[in-house]
Amino acid sequence: MATPTDTLTLPYAADFHVHLRHGDMMRMVTPTLRSGGVNVAYVMPNLVPPIKTTEEALRYKAELEAIEPRVTYLMTLYLTPELTPEEIHKAAAAGIAGVKSYPRGVTTNSDAGVESYEIYYPVFEAMEACGMVLNLHGEVPSDADKGVCVLNAEEKFLPWLRTLHERFPRLRIVLEHATTKAAVDMVKSLGDTVGCTITAHHLCLVVDDWAGKPHSFCKPVAKYPYDRQALRDVVKEGHPRFFLGSDSAPHTRNTKECAQACAGVYTTPALVPYLAALFDELNCLDKLQGFACDFGRRFYGVQAGLDEGAMTLKRGNWEVPSVYAAATENGSLEVVPFKAGQKLGWQLQ
Amino acid sequence: MATPTDTLTLPYAADFHVHLRHGDMMRMVTPTLRSGGVNVAYVMPNLVPPIKTTEEALRYKAELEAIEPRVTYLMTLYLTPELTPEEIHKAAAAGIAGVKSYPRGVTTNSDAGVESYEIYYPVFEAMEACGMVLNLHGEVPSDADKGVCVLNAEEKFLPWLRTLHERFPRLRIVLEHATTKAAVDMVKSLGDTVGCTITAHHLCLVVDDWAGKPHSFCKPVAKYPYDRQALRDVVKEGHPRFFLGSDSAPHTRNTKECAQACAGVYTTPALVPYLAALFDELNCLDKLQGFACDFGRRFYGVQAGLDEGAMTLKRGNWEVPSVYAAATENGSLEVVPFKAGQKLGWQLQ
Repeated sequence: MATPTDTLTLPYAADFHVHLRHGDMMRMVTPTLRSGGVNVAYVMPNLVPPIKTTEEALRYKAELEAIEPRVTYLMTLYLTPELTPEEIHKAAAAGIAGVKSYPRGVTTNSDAGVESYEIYYPVFEAMEACGMVLNLHGEVPSDADKGVCVLNAEEKFLPWLRTLHERFPRLRIVLEHATTKAAVDMVKSLGDTVGCTITAHHLCLVVDDWAGKPHSFCKPVAKYPYDRQALRDVVKEGHPRFFLGSDSAPHTRNTKECAQACAGVYTTPALVPYLAALFDELNCLDKLQGFACDFGRRFYGVQAGLDEGAMTLKRGNWEVPSVYAAATENGSLEVVPFKAGQKLGWQLQ
Repeated sequence: MATPTDTLTLPYAADFHVHLRHGDMMRMVTPTLRSGGVNVAYVMPNLVPPIKTTEEALRYKAELEAIEPRVTYLMTLYLTPELTPEEIHKAAAAGIAGVKSYPRGVTTNSDAGVESYEIYYPVFEAMEACGMVLNLHGEVPSDADKGVCVLNAEEKFLPWLRTLHERFPRLRIVLEHATTKAAVDMVKSLGDTVGCTITAHHLCLVVDDWAGKPHSFCKPVAKYPYDRQALRDVVKEGHPRFFLGSDSAPHTRNTKECAQACAGVYTTPALVPYLAALFDELNCLDKLQGFACDFGRRFYGVQAGLDEGAMTLKRGNWEVPSVYAAATENGSLEVVPFKAGQKLGWQLQ
């Protein structure tokens, strides 16, 4: 007989930041949402080319639904100068949930990103009026002459977060994939309209873990032990404005194990098990549901996926596959997941 | 007609920290010392197994001389508990120049490294008496629970440097491959028996340059822009205790472009051209000879290689090869050099 602590029953998780790609990669990744314990996916718009209009977002959503209809897809637009207040109203009416801002050039497919925010204030006003959420990739571009590098790029972005919140206090803003103590402290200091996503991998990694290890290399990079501790502490605290956004970002093995690796860690297929194993290790399994299932839905005001029955996690000794592969017209697609080949103490039943 | 600034005449450089490996790699790398402008090589002992005795060092030296006799090889022993004061006296009498200390586990082939220095004090006393040099890999092992990671491992080591210098003021100590402002400041603050090597690549790189880029990934890792600036400043200042040690560390392409890259940057084949291009960019070509040729020889008290005629560098537009390859019994050996495929503004004539 299993003791109570050998199983765990939760609603399906909501992943408030995920990259589902397009084409073959989309077809491979999207079905793994549910096997990772997720039935709400907040979908990033940084395709090539980016999703910039309501029509593009709806078309993308339909593609995803055709692949896996048992997931609710919350769609986003990519913030560019072409985005107008009119388009915001149209998007909100069509159910588009948010707008994602990328500083130019800091991560995968961010060449169309922003350099300064003032020109977007009319768009933000419209978003505030419509209840759309602003999702911020919170890094300034690296510039060695200005002393900016991947290690301080997030901290140097934080004044923007405060400025935008002060200027648009009713606009819901999410600082995405926070990696630093500075970010945690800043978000805590701001009002209830400011949320923050934390990834599964940033709760696990420090800089040593991605040094020379492309499958754990992502942007923002994982940082100091004290930064990771701050992420863990806020999760253990059960702070309701800090919630799951996996930033799961699949890249093929050959674009990782090469001279210049793409940034991104692939966690979708085992997302909730990764978290359960970590929360268990941190002695805070009781905080898992809040972080992974409840707080994000509450911040966004969505009930999606809660009508579905619960999922059950059980203790185990499951080995993460060394690779996820799919046959394609041009050969095969291989993606190495987070903690490939390692044992996890929890798995989905 | 070339103007005076289009050519540069220098003695051959002395590289006071280089990995020449063994076997096929040794046979490929050793001949490239001279094509990189070097005729004195201070040879690291971290082979598998490490060079721990006078006999092993002399045997290794003979192998290197058989491959390229026009280079002076200054040999080192690997500091382990097996090393005795008696062996130090023997080594010094045989012309072994120094002893290299690796903290356990911090870099390639450092599993035999030290965890604390007190037990080595009798060895250091013997070295001080014999005039042997202590070469320190200046990092403490990463330990997230103690807040130590690759970013602060060097700074946290520096108190050891001060302690050892205070305890053995006449022992010549070299802090190897400094990467931080903290290290530069510490070495400057200590006496004339403390020197410091700086690599060509750490004068070029910051953390962004090795994030996801295995061929620029080494230990210690390149750090913040202000750290790089401190290295550049001390070189521009022409400080005589800061001199060239390339830490050139070849690894095969397949052990770099993989899930867990070996640490090391390969600069040997174009070492002086890399430096000339950078010093030119930094507007301090007049400091190149001191840094690359004179200061290290003076610190070590060696005249080796100065009797040879000068070498000439000329401005050019030379492209660094994308790979260095050699046929071996088992196939071929491929090593991707620093700045592979990039143009350099200076080349050896």
